Amino acid sequence: MISDLDNLRVVLVAARNPLNIGAAARAMSNFGVRRLRVVNPYEVAFREARSAVGAAGLLAKAEQYDNVAEAVADCRLVVGTTDARRRELQHRLLRLDEGGRAIKRQLKAGAVALVFGSERVGLSNQEMSHCHWMMRIPTREEHGSMNLGQAVAVCMYELVRGRKAAAAKVAPTQKEQRPAQSAELERLTQVVLEVLRASGYVNPRAAAAEEKLRRLVRRMELNGNDAEVWLGMLRQIAWKLGTNEKSER
Amino acid sequence: MISDLDNLRVVLVAARNPLNIGAAARAMSNFGVRRLRVVNPYEVAFREARSAVGAAGLLAKAEQYDNVAEAVADCRLVVGTTDARRRELQHRLLRLDEGGRAIKRQLKAGAVALVFGSERVGLSNQEMSHCHWMMRIPTREEHGSMNLGQAVAVCMYELVRGRKAAAAKVAPTQKEQRPAQSAELERLTQVVLEVLRASGYVNPRAAAAEEKLRRLVRRMELNGNDAEVWLGMLRQIAWKLGTNEKSER
Repeated sequence: MISDLDNLRVVLVAARNPLNIGAAARAMSNFGVRRLRVVNPYEVAFREARSAVGAAGLLAKAEQYDNVAEAVADCRLVVGTTDARRRELQHRLLRLDEGGRAIKRQLKAGAVALVFGSERVGLSNQEMSHCHWMMRIPTREEHGSMNLGQAVAVCMYELVRGRKAAAAKVAPTQKEQRPAQSAELERLTQVVLEVLRASGYVNPRAAAAEEKLRRLVRRMELNGNDAEVWLGMLRQIAWKLGTNEKSER
Repeated sequence: MISDLDNLRVVLVAARNPLNIGAAARAMSNFGVRRLRVVNPYEVAFREARSAVGAAGLLAKAEQYDNVAEAVADCRLVVGTTDARRRELQHRLLRLDEGGRAIKRQLKAGAVALVFGSERVGLSNQEMSHCHWMMRIPTREEHGSMNLGQAVAVCMYELVRGRKAAAAKVAPTQKEQRPAQSAELERLTQVVLEVLRASGYVNPRAAAAEEKLRRLVRRMELNGNDAEVWLGMLRQIAWKLGTNEKSER
């Protein structure tokens, strides 16, 4: 299935740790993003990264470039990521959710590059200068710097979040989870009341107890299945207690 | 500054790789979540995980537990995470954005546990049975399984995304209607089980019955008051049945 996510290129610039490149690849694969580009990775052995569980193919197809300019050459929108610790940022800075919306719009029209800098220093001014604008994950000021693989995962999630294609299917078991009907709840209420009377918890003549119990049962917001299960249990308990009652009569 | 994120406990169950525990700690710190709990980590040396860049303090303060029940005992909402590969999931399953909304609401009122299973096998049925419902990150079906540290990062981001500086406070009159703590729900579960055994509804040796019942009790989403009322009722019933049992012997 072709989706507009095929227009997204994740660009890792000067990543120093092959594990991080592998982790980025895994997160991309998890969210259905396939095009990885690496600019001057620190170790050439990155393609064997063991952290790329389930994404070895994606990693093997990663494209290697000598500089950012070449890596983003075919893209119509280039977005850099930053933890915005540096004061002298010259770019427009968008929060991930705002930026994510803009990227999603653009993905329908053409190729978009999402650029991540190296683990230690992020993107240099020169590298950033290839970006249209910068995007920031809303980490807290005191500890803004994210692990590269985790930052990629969070960005992938933001770009996929709310998409229809990626939506989880409802398990078949869930179709039975409609709220219980009032009639069922009332049957349940009556059996509980019977059990409580038989065990001496409530005075058989106290009317207020019944209303309290009715409210209590409604507050549980049982689904139809669960109401039936509770009813079965309570009937068994009532029968056990009731047997004794009958013999007393 | 105290925020409702202080009510969040991230619970890692049987994590096998200390690097992943460190990565989870780092992501928590990035997004301002501080309370980490670990259940049976595979290596005791996890507190020295080098991947916990900037989060060594958080990791040092992580609390260790022997089982899920104890790790979530003080929590009023317990949410498990899953990649939903297993077809036989018995819980209600929410997508991360839906579940995130529910968690954010609950964080204003009390402690919430977000539970992650081990890297290989996720959460067992027994572990899951302590959860009110399950949550799924919208990864694609063909490659659903995320790296643990990345999954934590994505969940933390979802819970922080779009937050305003000051959270709305819960009205004082509502404080009694907070969801029951897990410890109360577990007591209730045990008394119901006792009653069901005494009345011959369940085979005393069937372990699956206990897990089913645990899930059933969590699905009622009882508030603290109601849990107490039910507990009182069931203790009375148990006493009554127990008396009969004794006289039969």
